[in-house]
Amino acid sequence: MFFELKGKDNNSKARAGVVETDHGLIETPIFMPVGTAASVKGVHQTELTNEINADIILGNTYHLYLRPKTDILSQAGGLHKFMNWHRPILTDSGGYQVYSLSNTNKINENGVKFKSHIDGSTHFFSPESSMEIQRKIGADIIMAFDECTPYPCEYNYAKRSMHMTHRWLERCKTFLNENPEHYNYKQTFFPIVQGSTYKDLRKQSAEYIANAGAEGNAIGGLSVGEPAEEMYAMTEVVCDILPWDKPRYLMGVGTPINILENIALGIDMFDCVMPTRNARNGMLFTAHGTINIKNKKWEDDFSPIDEMNHTFVDTFYTKAYLKHLFSANEYLGKQIATIHNLGFYMWLVREARKHILTGDFTDWKNSMVKQMDKRL
Amino acid sequence: MFFELKGKDNNSKARAGVVETDHGLIETPIFMPVGTAASVKGVHQTELTNEINADIILGNTYHLYLRPKTDILSQAGGLHKFMNWHRPILTDSGGYQVYSLSNTNKINENGVKFKSHIDGSTHFFSPESSMEIQRKIGADIIMAFDECTPYPCEYNYAKRSMHMTHRWLERCKTFLNENPEHYNYKQTFFPIVQGSTYKDLRKQSAEYIANAGAEGNAIGGLSVGEPAEEMYAMTEVVCDILPWDKPRYLMGVGTPINILENIALGIDMFDCVMPTRNARNGMLFTAHGTINIKNKKWEDDFSPIDEMNHTFVDTFYTKAYLKHLFSANEYLGKQIATIHNLGFYMWLVREARKHILTGDFTDWKNSMVKQMDKRL
Ligand SMILES: [Zn+2]
Ligand SMILES: [Zn+2]
Repeated sequence: MFFELKGKDNNSKARAGVVETDHGLIETPIFMPVGTAASVKGVHQTELTNEINADIILGNTYHLYLRPKTDILSQAGGLHKFMNWHRPILTDSGGYQVYSLSNTNKINENGVKFKSHIDGSTHFFSPESSMEIQRKIGADIIMAFDECTPYPCEYNYAKRSMHMTHRWLERCKTFLNENPEHYNYKQTFFPIVQGSTYKDLRKQSAEYIANAGAEGNAIGGLSVGEPAEEMYAMTEVVCDILPWDKPRYLMGVGTPINILENIALGIDMFDCVMPTRNARNGMLFTAHGTINIKNKKWEDDFSPIDEMNHTFVDTFYTKAYLKHLFSANEYLGKQIATIHNLGFYMWLVREARKHILTGDFTDWKNSMVKQMDKRL
Repeated sequence: MFFELKGKDNNSKARAGVVETDHGLIETPIFMPVGTAASVKGVHQTELTNEINADIILGNTYHLYLRPKTDILSQAGGLHKFMNWHRPILTDSGGYQVYSLSNTNKINENGVKFKSHIDGSTHFFSPESSMEIQRKIGADIIMAFDECTPYPCEYNYAKRSMHMTHRWLERCKTFLNENPEHYNYKQTFFPIVQGSTYKDLRKQSAEYIANAGAEGNAIGGLSVGEPAEEMYAMTEVVCDILPWDKPRYLMGVGTPINILENIALGIDMFDCVMPTRNARNGMLFTAHGTINIKNKKWEDDFSPIDEMNHTFVDTFYTKAYLKHLFSANEYLGKQIATIHNLGFYMWLVREARKHILTGDFTDWKNSMVKQMDKRL
């Protein structure tokens, strides 16, 4: 992987760059649609490419390990071939889902014992097994196995957990050094900063991660329920320590506003289920605010979904039609809303990038934040 | 509407023709995908046009009347504009759904009182109100309001019901004569032959319908549970009486084999939920038999869904991937299977047309029927 900075904003810490992987370029700042189980829900890979134009998508190791199972992905020649998606992919480590989705997980220095949320069967993830699974899945960017602490989190627990995450990082690196890629392209490993909402822990963790000398770095354990201001405070502390010449990935963030504010703090990569999950609930993000398309007020509004036309659905379908599809529980409604929201998120990060390069990012960001904070 | 016969098979009663409507041509024999509530479930209108290449789709008056409601469709300027589909549409009369979906319907000479399956509210459909609703929906082809008898049906009930359907036909015609189209294109009205599985009733009804002098005629009350042989026997009796120079529409039929056998008996138009509903349950129709994609045997089969590549999904995705999507309950699986099945049905009727025109329809039909009767 190769990262090059193309420009910086003068009034904030926002950066524009390019990440080069063996599956193609990623222009940063970037948003990565979440394709949990080898599918961005309700969206064809052709639509991801041709309409949404996603540079990179995310897969969830926990889900892929349970279904279709690692062995099938190996036989397919990796996730890219399995799902016929040939742009970059990033996988998380499975840690977050083990804590949030599975039952009765038991965590100790060795790793985490958990029961599948699908059939209750017992499994064990460790730094080594997470790396082994991620080697077989074959994403371009793979993530360290960490403990993601909940919010709020007691200081001493956060501290102990952070140190364990650091020890786990060494085990991940050792495993990866001893076990090379399975396929004929490179995988890049990102370690993860933890430390909950404690500035001193975040600093300590960011220093530890910075010293690991990885090709990119991630910030985990945020967007787990804390107020946005705490999130921004942590991002700022961490970004000031992480190397400036490596991409920075803020995991699981967030709303369009969260994304712009974090870009201003120096974040380059984002992922979140919000545009896709909220779409399935009838919530549309637009440059002028959010729309709850289930609202009765749209039933006779025959104007396009979004005049800005980020993707074909925006002007092909009307608000009244989309409202009807949600009322009638027609799945096409979820498909349309998902394509719209992902198209909007992609537009937002690309527009941010343009404004960073032209030098007026901060003014643009401030006006967008105001504008997007409305309910239409 | 204009219908022209382009060719006939020498060894069967199969015909190839063209129907001309104000929204474009329909090459017959044709299959019409069912778009119940202004959406072919899980399929974008762009995919219906560009991938499946449907000449015409069907809408259900009962569903459209309840949601989005007739008034919204009127305001939109009709169903074509509402859903942004500008090829032909056919609507049924609402009768069939009133009998099969709604609760405690009460039927008498006047019409049918029924409770909505959505909210239990009470409604009344009559020949007049069905015509009025269909005028507002604005389909290119609209259907008579009939009683569709169940199977089995006692002879005297079938006879009384048939006569009522004939009386209702006169009321439909009177209403339509007195109430012209709402939009700037023509609507064509098809009456419906009933008579359950009784040859003498079917003959009587076919003669009555033939005398109505409509621009096209339909056969209802079949594919409601009777053995295929009884269906074919009724189709044969009726097709021998209906005018040869008008299109014949067999409602609610059927499997790929049913369609080919009925084409051989002189049917020109079909609709059925089978390709779409079965797709959502993981059943794929192919030229070589049916596939239950949920079957474990496909989990490591990395061959294309269907080498014949009727639509892009057939070779873009593999059986193993599609099987995974169904296992993981990912909606994309239903989307892919639906596009595949509709693409296959369209291929089947177009191939039938070609073979009618080249003169070897019967041989081709017999070999296809054999081939498609397998489970892969
Ligand atoms: Zn999120
Ligand atoms: Zn059917």
